[in-house]
Amino acid sequence: MSCRLPMVSAVRTVGLLRRGEESLLLPSQRRRWLSASAIREDVLSITNLEDRTRPAFARTASSKLSTLTWSAPPRNVLIVKKRHVPIVRSALVSLARHLKANYPSTNLILEPSTAHSLHHEFHFPVYTLPPSEKLGPRGERLYHDKTDLLITLGGDGTILHAASLFSACRMVPPVLSFAMGTLGFLGEWKWEEHAEAVGEAFAGGARVLRRERLKVGVYDCDGKRVTGEWEFESIGDAHAMNEVNIHRGKSPHLAVVEVFVSGRFLTEAVADGMIIATPTGSTAYSLSSGGSIIHPSVSSLLLTPICPRSLSFRPLVLPADCVLTLKLSAKNRAGNVEVSVDGRRWGGIGRGEEVRVWAEKIDGEKGGIPCLKGRLGGREDDGWVGGLNGLLKFNYPFGEEE
Amino acid sequence: MSCRLPMVSAVRTVGLLRRGEESLLLPSQRRRWLSASAIREDVLSITNLEDRTRPAFARTASSKLSTLTWSAPPRNVLIVKKRHVPIVRSALVSLARHLKANYPSTNLILEPSTAHSLHHEFHFPVYTLPPSEKLGPRGERLYHDKTDLLITLGGDGTILHAASLFSACRMVPPVLSFAMGTLGFLGEWKWEEHAEAVGEAFAGGARVLRRERLKVGVYDCDGKRVTGEWEFESIGDAHAMNEVNIHRGKSPHLAVVEVFVSGRFLTEAVADGMIIATPTGSTAYSLSSGGSIIHPSVSSLLLTPICPRSLSFRPLVLPADCVLTLKLSAKNRAGNVEVSVDGRRWGGIGRGEEVRVWAEKIDGEKGGIPCLKGRLGGREDDGWVGGLNGLLKFNYPFGEEE
Amino acid sequence: MSCRLPMVSAVRTVGLLRRGEESLLLPSQRRRWLSASAIREDVLSITNLEDRTRPAFARTASSKLSTLTWSAPPRNVLIVKKRHVPIVRSALVSLARHLKANYPSTNLILEPSTAHSLHHEFHFPVYTLPPSEKLGPRGERLYHDKTDLLITLGGDGTILHAASLFSACRMVPPVLSFAMGTLGFLGEWKWEEHAEAVGEAFAGGARVLRRERLKVGVYDCDGKRVTGEWEFESIGDAHAMNEVNIHRGKSPHLAVVEVFVSGRFLTEAVADGMIIATPTGSTAYSLSSGGSIIHPSVSSLLLTPICPRSLSFRPLVLPADCVLTLKLSAKNRAGNVEVSVDGRRWGGIGRGEEVRVWAEKIDGEKGGIPCLKGRLGGREDDGWVGGLNGLLKFNYPFGEEE
Amino acid sequence: MSCRLPMVSAVRTVGLLRRGEESLLLPSQRRRWLSASAIREDVLSITNLEDRTRPAFARTASSKLSTLTWSAPPRNVLIVKKRHVPIVRSALVSLARHLKANYPSTNLILEPSTAHSLHHEFHFPVYTLPPSEKLGPRGERLYHDKTDLLITLGGDGTILHAASLFSACRMVPPVLSFAMGTLGFLGEWKWEEHAEAVGEAFAGGARVLRRERLKVGVYDCDGKRVTGEWEFESIGDAHAMNEVNIHRGKSPHLAVVEVFVSGRFLTEAVADGMIIATPTGSTAYSLSSGGSIIHPSVSSLLLTPICPRSLSFRPLVLPADCVLTLKLSAKNRAGNVEVSVDGRRWGGIGRGEEVRVWAEKIDGEKGGIPCLKGRLGGREDDGWVGGLNGLLKFNYPFGEEE
Repeated sequence: MSCRLPMVSAVRTVGLLRRGEESLLLPSQRRRWLSASAIREDVLSITNLEDRTRPAFARTASSKLSTLTWSAPPRNVLIVKKRHVPIVRSALVSLARHLKANYPSTNLILEPSTAHSLHHEFHFPVYTLPPSEKLGPRGERLYHDKTDLLITLGGDGTILHAASLFSACRMVPPVLSFAMGTLGFLGEWKWEEHAEAVGEAFAGGARVLRRERLKVGVYDCDGKRVTGEWEFESIGDAHAMNEVNIHRGKSPHLAVVEVFVSGRFLTEAVADGMIIATPTGSTAYSLSSGGSIIHPSVSSLLLTPICPRSLSFRPLVLPADCVLTLKLSAKNRAGNVEVSVDGRRWGGIGRGEEVRVWAEKIDGEKGGIPCLKGRLGGREDDGWVGGLNGLLKFNYPFGEEE
Repeated sequence: MSCRLPMVSAVRTVGLLRRGEESLLLPSQRRRWLSASAIREDVLSITNLEDRTRPAFARTASSKLSTLTWSAPPRNVLIVKKRHVPIVRSALVSLARHLKANYPSTNLILEPSTAHSLHHEFHFPVYTLPPSEKLGPRGERLYHDKTDLLITLGGDGTILHAASLFSACRMVPPVLSFAMGTLGFLGEWKWEEHAEAVGEAFAGGARVLRRERLKVGVYDCDGKRVTGEWEFESIGDAHAMNEVNIHRGKSPHLAVVEVFVSGRFLTEAVADGMIIATPTGSTAYSLSSGGSIIHPSVSSLLLTPICPRSLSFRPLVLPADCVLTLKLSAKNRAGNVEVSVDGRRWGGIGRGEEVRVWAEKIDGEKGGIPCLKGRLGGREDDGWVGGLNGLLKFNYPFGEEE
Repeated sequence: MSCRLPMVSAVRTVGLLRRGEESLLLPSQRRRWLSASAIREDVLSITNLEDRTRPAFARTASSKLSTLTWSAPPRNVLIVKKRHVPIVRSALVSLARHLKANYPSTNLILEPSTAHSLHHEFHFPVYTLPPSEKLGPRGERLYHDKTDLLITLGGDGTILHAASLFSACRMVPPVLSFAMGTLGFLGEWKWEEHAEAVGEAFAGGARVLRRERLKVGVYDCDGKRVTGEWEFESIGDAHAMNEVNIHRGKSPHLAVVEVFVSGRFLTEAVADGMIIATPTGSTAYSLSSGGSIIHPSVSSLLLTPICPRSLSFRPLVLPADCVLTLKLSAKNRAGNVEVSVDGRRWGGIGRGEEVRVWAEKIDGEKGGIPCLKGRLGGREDDGWVGGLNGLLKFNYPFGEEE
Repeated sequence: MSCRLPMVSAVRTVGLLRRGEESLLLPSQRRRWLSASAIREDVLSITNLEDRTRPAFARTASSKLSTLTWSAPPRNVLIVKKRHVPIVRSALVSLARHLKANYPSTNLILEPSTAHSLHHEFHFPVYTLPPSEKLGPRGERLYHDKTDLLITLGGDGTILHAASLFSACRMVPPVLSFAMGTLGFLGEWKWEEHAEAVGEAFAGGARVLRRERLKVGVYDCDGKRVTGEWEFESIGDAHAMNEVNIHRGKSPHLAVVEVFVSGRFLTEAVADGMIIATPTGSTAYSLSSGGSIIHPSVSSLLLTPICPRSLSFRPLVLPADCVLTLKLSAKNRAGNVEVSVDGRRWGGIGRGEEVRVWAEKIDGEKGGIPCLKGRLGGREDDGWVGGLNGLLKFNYPFGEEE
């Protein structure tokens, strides 16, 4: 590809600089020797970056929160933004400049389309996946290898998308999320607080909630692992932040699913589908399907049926240390049912095949999505209450006020 | 087709006989001149039958029940049975013999596969769709034109299937349904009562509940009627006994649907789908989706969301004299959503297209599915209570008994 | 009481005037001969008024709406207002003046406390219950006998209160309701439209929805009618606009209730209580308890359990032509349970006693609560949609907007 | 009897204590003095028994289960039975004889009415509360001080009652529960397995689930602790096995309750009431009120509204390390609302007063109700699945089977 060469030379040059030196160069110098191309000169391949710095998570008094600490300050910052919203675009530009001005060794990583549309706003290079790696497992591997800190600008959907880039990664970088617009459950910080938030994230000491994920595997009738259409499974297990579901999809016939808890038969569900969700996902599809709202600090797996042919299939909340299995029954009339992970199609499974779901183990540096806790609304608050009231219109009273 | 000619000659012969004379022929005579083929000689085309006799429905004290009356006794009896259940097969054979023995002018109509697998059990001919008309609108038209009385042997699914054969018909023949096995909501009579039930059906005087159906039309952005994959729509409007629904199907994106009540905007639903159901259908998909149970005598249209992205989309019950419109919003992310009628796929609709649903008008001879009321359990009872308790396990108590 | 005599004399004098003549008197004249007392002279006993004029209701194309017609224009107007809200008080004063100015033969009836606190605002007399009749059946009888038109200023609670004054009356006067503040389901008109609304109400021709009520009777083990603490039952059956419920009240033990539909056993409910509601009441207690929302034009009775000890007691919607019976089982552990009608305590019932509920018959002039339909929001609309969206926050979406 | 002598000496020791003159008497004296009748001689005061032996709970691989160990074998066994069921009475007699035969140092403790009606079945003494201590805190204190092992014969209600005897006790003795009749959630063992179960309980090594309880306190407007009608609160905090609830009770007015999570305002509930439940209680009142089913191993507090005036008050599941506060709002119209603990009335609270609820801490020997896990149905199973299917008729399918 035409942009390859300049990038390679850029890489080398950058590689020769030590951390921090790069910022000593004047913009004009950098632009000159990086490339002759005016347009693409500052979009570099993420492969040029040094490998990530891993954070540590120290225990706190609360069993559920930990404290972020860095062995070395974070440098490679991946910013993921909501699309097509001008105000979010501007925020990203401001944020990137703020980072570079205040933490000069910062390397800015963007998703490819964002990188190409925004790099001209900056007098410093922007890193992204090399063109050949826009999609698929190798691209995701690069994000995994390079990202120190992940910042999202948008709403819960943006965080979900960002998390999906690390769905095969056991050591997701810390996530700093800014709620742009409606407050969500996951967007912990207000945009107005970004200087303070970034300060906390870089300095260490921020409170972190490591959100449970689900580990998902699909197995055939003989118990052998099957891979679906998710290529990146080749680099690791698939993990879900919100939920895994199976669904009859386009078939008119209800799915017939045997449900097992840690290998013991629980029930046979005849339904449109079944959801297994995390507490984080309790306010997503599971909620639409009648599930309760579970605080993200309650370690558990949710089992919520989708339109069951039963009056008495109340949603269940199960311990995080069990494995849940959804096995497509031999009675299922349609050939197969759809499996989705966090709303993305994984593929179909046939009769006798099964989806097994575990709560991801969180220990040491590994496991969960480490979300930096915010101070939404100016007070020490967990955002969850704000999400309930702001987003769900939780407990909005009906009837006239007296 | 090879069997075509003999059937035609058979038709003619039969056609020359007056009603009742046919039965004067000895079996050996009939078999001889009908066909030389041993296998198919007694499977005749339904086209040989005279057109149907229409019943009338006299008002009763109850606003919802009427009394069946016949201008001439019914002769053409279509029996639809549940498949693959030996006991139901035997019941059909007994019933057909009983009919022929007690009401000799009865002409037995069966669905093609049933006719071909069972005709050898009888010493009288069996009528069915001609081979070229097994499927599609012309075949259904023949059922409409010829059937005086419809008898079902099976469960609610069998009745639903039988009703689907008349979904484009405004004058559905009276339905006498025998519950074979688990009692259902729709199976009004026990098999043990068949002699009595058939007597009532033939003599007239039976109590009839005319179950409301839905009339369904799909319209494009310009308000022009669109036809889907349902060929038989060419012969009349599609009607649903249970429900019409739209659903995101295989798409990961929620459907965005504008709901109108008699032309006025009600709400924008963001959901897996939307159901519009009859009271009869209130114990089907709508129930799975959280709807209330509506007695079939309550004229109404049910609007029940499927997994809505809202905590506050409670199911609605609307008057039968309104029209409900589900319009796929321009905001819908997937190109189209699936439309199903009584669980059968109708086709997809795109953005700006809409499904309109009316409660079918019931007046005079037309409208609804006239179901003969049974005496389930030996007492004057409406079957509905039996269905609640027997089928739904309605109000099954939990906790220990004191 | 000291004010008795002047009122009696006032009565006589007024009684001598024919309808219409009264308004010919100049205010100064009237005031002079009514009383010498400056304070109380204008609060007269409702007994002075001539008996009410009965409206008729003509059928419309819609089976559910009728048209209000008057044989003679209404004169005795009872205005009921929400308490303790200054803006509602001002509205009442304006409305009364408007009525008197534009329909001079209007006689203004107010509830006693309102009459005494507001009469000094008017230069015309205000009628109310005589002091001895503030409460109880004789007072309500007077409202029934005298009120031509009922106007409410407030919210749904105010309408419910106004309706309760006529709960033993089979011919409730037409109700014109203004929503002061939050739109409700029942408040049909905006205050801004009051001139227009009053015009429609007086001229006749207004569209009327006659809201179904429930007729309630309590019977002992021998089937004999029992009266509770509701004195006014002595003048007629108790009727509910929203619902009747039984509830365990303060007892820790669940109520055990046998439910019968038109005399046939339906189920045994073990629950905190049971609600039988009208469609109007479907957005009140029944909704809190999990019931569907039923449009007021759907003739039906709702049966909704309150916290049943069952996973499978889905709410039921039954035909308006049946009678529902809630019988306290011999198994009930507590001695009795509480019965309430529209949220007011009726009394307790013991084991073997039962509450029977019928949908009130609506025919001719009798039955239902005739509510004048408004034009909320400036368009021909049934208010119900407005109530859903405005009051219930029906279908408020969760999750971030895309 | 062989164990008689030690008991006498025990009596003497006890006799040196002051509690009650009765205990100062020598057994021979007491017997004489208590009664000459053969009937009562073997009902002794529990005060004669030595103080309890405390078990220890060793950690297992599962974070939620522990292993029961005894420093000395249990001797004082309190058996609580369901009332008025002959088969349960017989079981108790068999069980007591089995204990005495196989574990001769066993002292049998029964509730007073059981003791007096059953003691003649045994040729060994039966211990119970002294007559003056049948009720109230001092009686409960005696159970706390003396019981090594608690055995229940009955259903979940019996276990709940047994637990209530220890509601002010931080160190509840291990509970061995036999399901007599319908399987429940809490009844871990089948009666047929009693020899095996008792063996496990006495030998130590049994698996134990320590069920979370709620600690409940009521506070006035100034934050001072208030005591209700529960006398035994004088001896310790009240604990609930299932739930605490507040309810409007007999008042027609909805309760207005401010809900706080660890001091932060969450929402204002307008409802019939509010439930705070344990996972164990998730299948009790909370389930009736719409809550999800939570496995007892999921540490959490459930917040479930009772008939809220809101379409969007979905039940919540909160972390066990928070404190939930239900504060009666100044807006509450009724003077007070009812507070109940495990279905027993605690008392009323007024405006500004609040109920605070914590999940009881479980550490070391203290906290929770240590329930011996059974082998229901012959396989290693947690009973919970059996309870779901057997008791709740969980996921009972509707519609006909295909």
